[in-house]
Amino acid sequence: MLQVGDTYSEKFSYTQEQVQAFAELSGDKNPLHLDAEYAATTMFKKPIIHGILGASIMSKILGMHFPGEGTVYLRQEIDFKRPMYVEVQYEAQLKVIEINSDKHTAVVETKIVDKETGKVNVLGNAHVMHKDKI
Amino acid sequence: MLQVGDTYSEKFSYTQEQVQAFAELSGDKNPLHLDAEYAATTMFKKPIIHGILGASIMSKILGMHFPGEGTVYLRQEIDFKRPMYVEVQYEAQLKVIEINSDKHTAVVETKIVDKETGKVNVLGNAHVMHKDKI
Repeated sequence: MLQVGDTYSEKFSYTQEQVQAFAELSGDKNPLHLDAEYAATTMFKKPIIHGILGASIMSKILGMHFPGEGTVYLRQEIDFKRPMYVEVQYEAQLKVIEINSDKHTAVVETKIVDKETGKVNVLGNAHVMHKDKI
Repeated sequence: MLQVGDTYSEKFSYTQEQVQAFAELSGDKNPLHLDAEYAATTMFKKPIIHGILGASIMSKILGMHFPGEGTVYLRQEIDFKRPMYVEVQYEAQLKVIEINSDKHTAVVETKIVDKETGKVNVLGNAHVMHKDKI
């Protein structure tokens, strides 16, 4: 059973090919994500990963590992605090901060950290339900 | 310039192939999204679209159309109120509910509605910055 204070972490990174694939899938072909010359003219200097693509690591972890199969995603709050770039090593860090056993729901803090700088790129809370594990 | 009360809407649907592609991209291969036999044993009865894939329509609209190129995504809150299914016609409905001209930021209500039933599947707010259009 998931408990308050339980944690899970996983390292990950994205490639430009994955950003391109997400652009095709979502239809979000904003040149900020795809065009290095365009991105060089912005405050970001180089192409940034779609925020929602970055956040999708949480969908994977919640649905596959923590708490895993059977998880129902109820709500996600996401602050895109710093841009994420391709070929950078990030770590997704999750921590259970609230449990409601009667409703089988939990609030899980969801954070993405740049492993090299230690800075937080994405911060938010996921609200999930799992009838057996919560 | 974006104004409080401005709205934008766009119809869309997803295919099972797109759900499969998102599963590959995100790594979220929860059988609830991919396996019809497994999904039949759950409360959802058939495979549901990943919530984050459904929400990605907002990334597209904000980044491409409303307010469009140059949009910086600051925050998204998403309530996954009802499951979304493939081959169903949905409409993304966006409405500007707050503007901060000094900071060039806006809060945009983001809603996904089932066109046939009129029910709300996804509800939340996007917080965006655009230095020219807000």
